[in-house]
Amino acid sequence: MTKTVQTAIVGVTGYAGAELARLLLAHPRLEGKPPVLAGRVEGKDLARGGIPLVEIHPQLGDNNGASKLKMQPFSWELLAERGVEVLFLATPHEQSRAWVPEALQRGLKVIDLSGAWRLTNPANRAVYAFEDEGTEQAAATQAQAVYGLPELHRKQIATAKLIANPGCYATSVILALKPLVAAGLVDLDRGIIADAKSGVSGAGKAPTAKTHFMSAAENLSAYGVFTHRHTGELLEQIGVSSDEIVFSPHLLPIPRGILSTIYVHFKQAQTRESVTAIYREFFAGSPMVRLYEKSLPQIQYSVRTNYADIGFELDASGKRAIIVSCLDNLLKGAAGQAVQNLNVIEGWPEAEGLR
Amino acid sequence: MTKTVQTAIVGVTGYAGAELARLLLAHPRLEGKPPVLAGRVEGKDLARGGIPLVEIHPQLGDNNGASKLKMQPFSWELLAERGVEVLFLATPHEQSRAWVPEALQRGLKVIDLSGAWRLTNPANRAVYAFEDEGTEQAAATQAQAVYGLPELHRKQIATAKLIANPGCYATSVILALKPLVAAGLVDLDRGIIADAKSGVSGAGKAPTAKTHFMSAAENLSAYGVFTHRHTGELLEQIGVSSDEIVFSPHLLPIPRGILSTIYVHFKQAQTRESVTAIYREFFAGSPMVRLYEKSLPQIQYSVRTNYADIGFELDASGKRAIIVSCLDNLLKGAAGQAVQNLNVIEGWPEAEGLR
Amino acid sequence: MTKTVQTAIVGVTGYAGAELARLLLAHPRLEGKPPVLAGRVEGKDLARGGIPLVEIHPQLGDNNGASKLKMQPFSWELLAERGVEVLFLATPHEQSRAWVPEALQRGLKVIDLSGAWRLTNPANRAVYAFEDEGTEQAAATQAQAVYGLPELHRKQIATAKLIANPGCYATSVILALKPLVAAGLVDLDRGIIADAKSGVSGAGKAPTAKTHFMSAAENLSAYGVFTHRHTGELLEQIGVSSDEIVFSPHLLPIPRGILSTIYVHFKQAQTRESVTAIYREFFAGSPMVRLYEKSLPQIQYSVRTNYADIGFELDASGKRAIIVSCLDNLLKGAAGQAVQNLNVIEGWPEAEGLR
Amino acid sequence: MTKTVQTAIVGVTGYAGAELARLLLAHPRLEGKPPVLAGRVEGKDLARGGIPLVEIHPQLGDNNGASKLKMQPFSWELLAERGVEVLFLATPHEQSRAWVPEALQRGLKVIDLSGAWRLTNPANRAVYAFEDEGTEQAAATQAQAVYGLPELHRKQIATAKLIANPGCYATSVILALKPLVAAGLVDLDRGIIADAKSGVSGAGKAPTAKTHFMSAAENLSAYGVFTHRHTGELLEQIGVSSDEIVFSPHLLPIPRGILSTIYVHFKQAQTRESVTAIYREFFAGSPMVRLYEKSLPQIQYSVRTNYADIGFELDASGKRAIIVSCLDNLLKGAAGQAVQNLNVIEGWPEAEGLR
Repeated sequence: MTKTVQTAIVGVTGYAGAELARLLLAHPRLEGKPPVLAGRVEGKDLARGGIPLVEIHPQLGDNNGASKLKMQPFSWELLAERGVEVLFLATPHEQSRAWVPEALQRGLKVIDLSGAWRLTNPANRAVYAFEDEGTEQAAATQAQAVYGLPELHRKQIATAKLIANPGCYATSVILALKPLVAAGLVDLDRGIIADAKSGVSGAGKAPTAKTHFMSAAENLSAYGVFTHRHTGELLEQIGVSSDEIVFSPHLLPIPRGILSTIYVHFKQAQTRESVTAIYREFFAGSPMVRLYEKSLPQIQYSVRTNYADIGFELDASGKRAIIVSCLDNLLKGAAGQAVQNLNVIEGWPEAEGLR
Repeated sequence: MTKTVQTAIVGVTGYAGAELARLLLAHPRLEGKPPVLAGRVEGKDLARGGIPLVEIHPQLGDNNGASKLKMQPFSWELLAERGVEVLFLATPHEQSRAWVPEALQRGLKVIDLSGAWRLTNPANRAVYAFEDEGTEQAAATQAQAVYGLPELHRKQIATAKLIANPGCYATSVILALKPLVAAGLVDLDRGIIADAKSGVSGAGKAPTAKTHFMSAAENLSAYGVFTHRHTGELLEQIGVSSDEIVFSPHLLPIPRGILSTIYVHFKQAQTRESVTAIYREFFAGSPMVRLYEKSLPQIQYSVRTNYADIGFELDASGKRAIIVSCLDNLLKGAAGQAVQNLNVIEGWPEAEGLR
Repeated sequence: MTKTVQTAIVGVTGYAGAELARLLLAHPRLEGKPPVLAGRVEGKDLARGGIPLVEIHPQLGDNNGASKLKMQPFSWELLAERGVEVLFLATPHEQSRAWVPEALQRGLKVIDLSGAWRLTNPANRAVYAFEDEGTEQAAATQAQAVYGLPELHRKQIATAKLIANPGCYATSVILALKPLVAAGLVDLDRGIIADAKSGVSGAGKAPTAKTHFMSAAENLSAYGVFTHRHTGELLEQIGVSSDEIVFSPHLLPIPRGILSTIYVHFKQAQTRESVTAIYREFFAGSPMVRLYEKSLPQIQYSVRTNYADIGFELDASGKRAIIVSCLDNLLKGAAGQAVQNLNVIEGWPEAEGLR
Repeated sequence: MTKTVQTAIVGVTGYAGAELARLLLAHPRLEGKPPVLAGRVEGKDLARGGIPLVEIHPQLGDNNGASKLKMQPFSWELLAERGVEVLFLATPHEQSRAWVPEALQRGLKVIDLSGAWRLTNPANRAVYAFEDEGTEQAAATQAQAVYGLPELHRKQIATAKLIANPGCYATSVILALKPLVAAGLVDLDRGIIADAKSGVSGAGKAPTAKTHFMSAAENLSAYGVFTHRHTGELLEQIGVSSDEIVFSPHLLPIPRGILSTIYVHFKQAQTRESVTAIYREFFAGSPMVRLYEKSLPQIQYSVRTNYADIGFELDASGKRAIIVSCLDNLLKGAAGQAVQNLNVIEGWPEAEGLR
């Protein structure tokens, strides 16, 4: 129980960063070891002692000492002085891309919440148009990265130096599909449809026409159909080709939560029991997945938890299924999963600090 | 311009009934001819002069004379005395089933907003379990019914005695798919997916656990997957078998609006132009359909209008398409469509009173 | 019935501008006379024929010919060529301040939706810090302005050249209080409290931290307490001093609507009847005010109408009252009131095109 | 650290009951001591082993062993067998009224979340119309009750047998006003206004016309003005007469959270510093109150925390103040406060399990 670790967060000003700070402050293994907060805030001078965390996120005030924490100007020296061992990056893709190599050189373990290092196939990465694409350093760094979905890669995560924390949509769809595809049930020739819907926090904190209350409230819109950046994660992690799956995201008029409705054809007729058995086996030992065996999950049940909730319905023939998969995009889809990965790295119970 | 008609509404207390009253009161051809309102209100004695409409729907107050209208106890005599020629039924399925035969006998034209007479195939009607199923009267009445989707059946509607006003989801999906299926583009063997999302008014006015604000707000849930009653309308109107389409509705945390995301495979590769051309031709002469040729429609654009908005995206191969179809479930999905049908019956411009 | 008028809108890109376009396009006296739309759009070249209105506001498409309208680059010559007689300005305060003098010189009647010309007392105007404050031109222009609240100033509006369309909050509070204060009922020494709550459209279309969905949704916040710019309108129009009233606005997590809860002490005990009589008399001949005599109005009843809804409750002593006043901030609080003013100017029925 | 206690909850099916279960399951002093859950569910037979908690509240699944908990049929024997020492009642007022005397007789400590025992003045209790009013047993029970607001009555709570957990609105208003009134600052003759706004969970779980999504969403309504049942708590706890305060609640279109805007006149001009000093002194040693000294609190900051957030603004004269007070009606306004009271009774740190 005595083992602990010093963490740091870069990017605490965003939504995922705030959740990460909240989780780390309340984590039982990190008592008395608040994360070092480092970064920049537009138009603010961090030089003199930093900005109080509660000024950035008033809702965190007085929670487990949050009121004493300050965000300080980032420097590698700061991290070294404070003895940081695990670095969480809740930063834009490009920044993660630029910083991770140095962090690894300095001996830090990195849990990166961006999309910078999730994709091993350069073709899938093309949508990001990273500037360092093709350099030796980028290739060497990518080679060290492990896709941070504990339900699939628990063992590799345990010893990884660089964890690429999955995308929120990707987590939702992969957990629903991987067990069935891996078991060979799915008729890939007939195509999989993943119709996903996400709350607005997934669109980030920048005020834009899209995130304006008047655009998002009382609305639903599809976007990035056929082209969304999380598609590459689906292909690589589920093991399907782009001809075999369509992924289509929508913006919901709620703050948080993702629900994915996934349509598959089975090669052979299945029963409720046969499908349930496959899920149960796959997720045995995965404390953060909840199977709904009698009903379908709803966004509301998973929001503000770190659970991925999965349920399904079969048609009368047993050859078509609709799988419904829900999670909180800021928790199991981002900060909670990052803490779950920390638990795996440190050898702590996987759900520690996440219930 | 002088021709007019006396209408009546049964079921003005519900959401669709309120919209219908609002539309008929503002309809330029019905100036000075407000609808007769007839019905019952739980626990209220209608006998003495009726209940003021504005007491039931305060938002209608003083609109075009609404403040003087009262809902009176229903009787066939009342309709006769007031010279009613067109009867709108915004009543439960069973009530429409029971009343329509007598209304037709009495020479009334009926526009029925319920699901009572929409389905010609008894197998598709089975989900309703109508008590009069199999009787001669029911069969004779059904034989007179026309499915009230003007974009498909304008001619038959014009001379019909009984209009079965379509379901809200069904309108949204049929308008998106019919042109493509009718043109023979769609590879039905690969299956169509219709993932539809509706605002809460679609669930009706009765307070239930499902319509409680705490259940519906900040939530999204799938329901009636593989079994929803509007499926039969899709089969009959689009002309596909139940093996060829999956329809899956969801409850959105907004008051009104439907967005359907529809996934099809084409037999041959298509271009944006070829698909657009098919839609344009099909909807030439249909003033209440708006094609989105440069972007996708959003729920917000169609809500509180009588338009069905349709747009689509093709994948790079031109063989897969995602069609997005939006409408207001209380207008193009119910009361607005009913008025559109009235316009067709009376020979008025189809969009009269609907802009 | 044949008299009509050519209108123009500057500022059609905002929320009030869109509502104004919708109302003018549907106005029965303006059939075949769509408003000229003039303005600028950031980053768009209007030079070649302008931007289609439906590209800016897709929801307006095909409504009464909206699909053919374009927003063109503003010039005085354009207005002259098109024979514009009434100019609606839905522009920022400073722009209205700059343009109105020239518009008047050119013989246009102006209905200005900004706060530029609402206040006659320079002390109340100080919060705007207008650059031309103190110039002769500004004084001469202000002298021609009439505060565009028809319920108070119908006669002056009828012959005015410059209508200063009231603030949304101000309309809500003035209509509730003016009848009681004018009748001498209110004990001003004990102070009036106006606790007002508005939907997000009142905060404008610019994406900001405040209008981000994540800040506004599931929230309520007070702002501008003791300092909001609409306060001056209350003082001047109700006829009270700043010691006698507190006005305190809040941001509601809904798109539109204002509800003001107003607390007064009466000098003498009143009855429901005595207070009702005063309101009835004051608003006789005011078709856009609805008195709620048996219950309190709710935001929902007035949203998407041009009505101001007013109701009240007395305490047991008859000496304290709570008045509840609701309206749609974009209609009776902005664009609808502007059209009401147009009706007054033109001598048309005041509610024409507003029901 | 080893001391613990066996708790029970009656009424776990409601919103406050669910929060209470969640809090007790995660409370560090109650590890391995889940609450006994007892009650009834309409139409369900609890006899055979009870209903799983996760069937009633799916969101609680797998949290700290919640998945093993069942709600069992209530009996005093069950409580005795399971060694229950502290009984939480999240039951209707009448049920609390009926059960508390027996619970006390049986030696249980009771924390009652209803309004049954909050009011000592029979005149204030009249609105509840309790059937046992005037009986000796009721009087004897009432005499043992302590109003469970730790910030005011910490000492008495510590030794109380019966804690009357405060109303949600009352907590919000009392905490904001008591320090200022107790310090003699407020000019009561000029009257206090408390304009309060609450999310829908405050209206309870029963589906009604008022709690229907369509009524509550996109709306704001005032209700119970001059007559709300929490008024009596304000009078007794703040120490003012009904002539000196007006309390006016509103229903907000959000799930949870209360914001009260409170208007006071001071006898003497105050400064920001003088008022802040009074609040600081009053709440020294109160870990669950957060003072906002530079800005005003917003509902969003306090929701899903057990904090009461308080801030204020003075006018230029220093003689009028607007105080804004926010809390989560299900936490600091109900279940969280109940746990805070448990902490006080047991001598644990007051914020234990509440951060």
